[in-house]
Amino acid sequence: MRIITLTTDFGLSDWFVGAMRGVILGLAPRAQIVDLTHGVPPGDVRAGAFALAAGCRCFPRGTIHVAVVDPGVGSARHALAVRTDDYVFVGPDNGLLSFALAGEKVRAVRRLTEERWFRRPVSRNFHGRDVFAPVAAHLSRGLPFAKLGPSAADWVRLPWPEPVTRGRTVRGEVVYLDRFGNAITSIRNEQLPPREGLVIRLSGNRRIPLRQFYQAVPAGRPVALPGSAGLLEVAVNGGSAADRLGLRIGSVLEMAR
Amino acid sequence: MRIITLTTDFGLSDWFVGAMRGVILGLAPRAQIVDLTHGVPPGDVRAGAFALAAGCRCFPRGTIHVAVVDPGVGSARHALAVRTDDYVFVGPDNGLLSFALAGEKVRAVRRLTEERWFRRPVSRNFHGRDVFAPVAAHLSRGLPFAKLGPSAADWVRLPWPEPVTRGRTVRGEVVYLDRFGNAITSIRNEQLPPREGLVIRLSGNRRIPLRQFYQAVPAGRPVALPGSAGLLEVAVNGGSAADRLGLRIGSVLEMAR
Amino acid sequence: MRIITLTTDFGLSDWFVGAMRGVILGLAPRAQIVDLTHGVPPGDVRAGAFALAAGCRCFPRGTIHVAVVDPGVGSARHALAVRTDDYVFVGPDNGLLSFALAGEKVRAVRRLTEERWFRRPVSRNFHGRDVFAPVAAHLSRGLPFAKLGPSAADWVRLPWPEPVTRGRTVRGEVVYLDRFGNAITSIRNEQLPPREGLVIRLSGNRRIPLRQFYQAVPAGRPVALPGSAGLLEVAVNGGSAADRLGLRIGSVLEMAR
Repeated sequence: MRIITLTTDFGLSDWFVGAMRGVILGLAPRAQIVDLTHGVPPGDVRAGAFALAAGCRCFPRGTIHVAVVDPGVGSARHALAVRTDDYVFVGPDNGLLSFALAGEKVRAVRRLTEERWFRRPVSRNFHGRDVFAPVAAHLSRGLPFAKLGPSAADWVRLPWPEPVTRGRTVRGEVVYLDRFGNAITSIRNEQLPPREGLVIRLSGNRRIPLRQFYQAVPAGRPVALPGSAGLLEVAVNGGSAADRLGLRIGSVLEMAR
Repeated sequence: MRIITLTTDFGLSDWFVGAMRGVILGLAPRAQIVDLTHGVPPGDVRAGAFALAAGCRCFPRGTIHVAVVDPGVGSARHALAVRTDDYVFVGPDNGLLSFALAGEKVRAVRRLTEERWFRRPVSRNFHGRDVFAPVAAHLSRGLPFAKLGPSAADWVRLPWPEPVTRGRTVRGEVVYLDRFGNAITSIRNEQLPPREGLVIRLSGNRRIPLRQFYQAVPAGRPVALPGSAGLLEVAVNGGSAADRLGLRIGSVLEMAR
Repeated sequence: MRIITLTTDFGLSDWFVGAMRGVILGLAPRAQIVDLTHGVPPGDVRAGAFALAAGCRCFPRGTIHVAVVDPGVGSARHALAVRTDDYVFVGPDNGLLSFALAGEKVRAVRRLTEERWFRRPVSRNFHGRDVFAPVAAHLSRGLPFAKLGPSAADWVRLPWPEPVTRGRTVRGEVVYLDRFGNAITSIRNEQLPPREGLVIRLSGNRRIPLRQFYQAVPAGRPVALPGSAGLLEVAVNGGSAADRLGLRIGSVLEMAR
């Protein structure tokens, strides 16, 4: 009983995720399928890459992580499987896997070219169902990795906005907005000084206190805190930081250490 | 371990789907429950019927497909179980099963009248929990089909807008809009000529090229392609065809072969 | 194979629920994890408490119910596990468990203080992943309840708006609005007289007939009926009572018996 996780932008309003599950269970009846998320905004490869990287390491060794945010489906983009020390990742080679792979020790990379592992006929616009799901199912049943297709030397990597340190100032940016409107930033928790009272500055010189939990500030007030993804978060106690502070992906913030 | 799929308009914001799962697992602890979708628009029997038909055949033989889009719950409408060569379908007799059954070889139809298979007391407005879930659970454990209730001769069928061919022109219409805003039409992929360059005309004489994948046209441009449900789709590369082209269920399109 | 249900306000657009599942499966690979709902409005402890109470009793004895609607995460609020005759409940001590516990025979209450059952390091703002999920996983594998932490005497209880009877009139209020816009009220089905023709009065003296199912009134018309959660519901046939009648949590209604 091997775990297969799914991360897609398919949403849950159509039958797309159910179809993937049906295909997997038809080939691997004992697979344990877990949704990481299907709420990636349509076509947003970067958000999908972030969600996959943030969630994948909560799973035990041997888990197969399938990710499909694939606006180039049917085009010449490649499909990949990547084996690391702990996991296998399966998805399109468009950068979607790259944030997760940055935290892994990569052992092997294969292109998915062997059509005998696909669902036939392969549609032009639903490789989640026809390529990635069946490949993951076969892998979960022990298909040797090398049989997937030819070895690949590398994969597409999305740029990551590394925080910039200048003197005592660290400058980062918002990299993800979650369902609560919390803004996850590129500044790592380890970059935070081990004292309270630090102040984060947003553009327009808005100042936000660093605390350890949301309710450390009054309701409706902004707060920064070391977040559960290992990155500094900006939040509003009981509200949405995205809405209240006008934060967007790429919004800049500065921290004086 | 038999698969039971669920297709409903219950959404995921309340406890309704969880309650169905609890009832099933209480009766059939080893059932494998899979959501096909719970995002059918409230009361939209036609959209539910389409989702069920589009997804059900991805599942292995023996799967029990439960569908509940049931605005007539508690009224005189019948409840049905239908056994086909490959599957069992369970749901209200309001047309919801009819698109899926059109692709199946039907072997037996029963009305769900035997209350001993229901959860007691049966509520007036949640037969998903009290009738359909327990019946599916009992079936998954081997309850003989004939014990469900009396045989039925037929079931309610929703009309399907069959494409109309006139000379070299095929006229179809939009039958489903998915989460991406792609418009699935009534024109079957087999009705498409095997060449590129074909042009689809929407009302207002808007012309859309037939291609094989979304990115075959520049970002933001409309494209038609043979879709994964076996039907012609109209899309916008990187956008929503529903929004950009003003497509709705029933929007007409024409194709010159 | 023990059932663990999850009730949260995490939504499904991020990786939060997937992360909880990964943590559970890493510790208890054979756990059967079921989503009760993740669509509780952000931070709405009362709505979460209602959903948990409405759904939890559909599950077989022995089920472990984990609930996380936790705006005070990281603060001094306690974390609890409560064992009843039929279930175990795990969650923050902020009232979230209280509606469900009102229907249970409580046998033991423990505070979750033993960090050896947590995922390490424990983040400040994601105890669903780091505290509640691993505790539930350990419990599902047989961890003795008493090892969780010290015994607690009581738990936080949310107020429940008990219906008020004055002469022949029962006065209640709206306690939950579901995905369909149906308004669930505080009036119990048992308080309804066993006859049709009763009239429910909303504020502004709007009168709504009591019937047994939605389609007992013409499309678009309001109707009251005994609901599946054991409480009187106000609905609109084919529409949203919340929208059409302007109902909100706390809206008052009266019934003459």
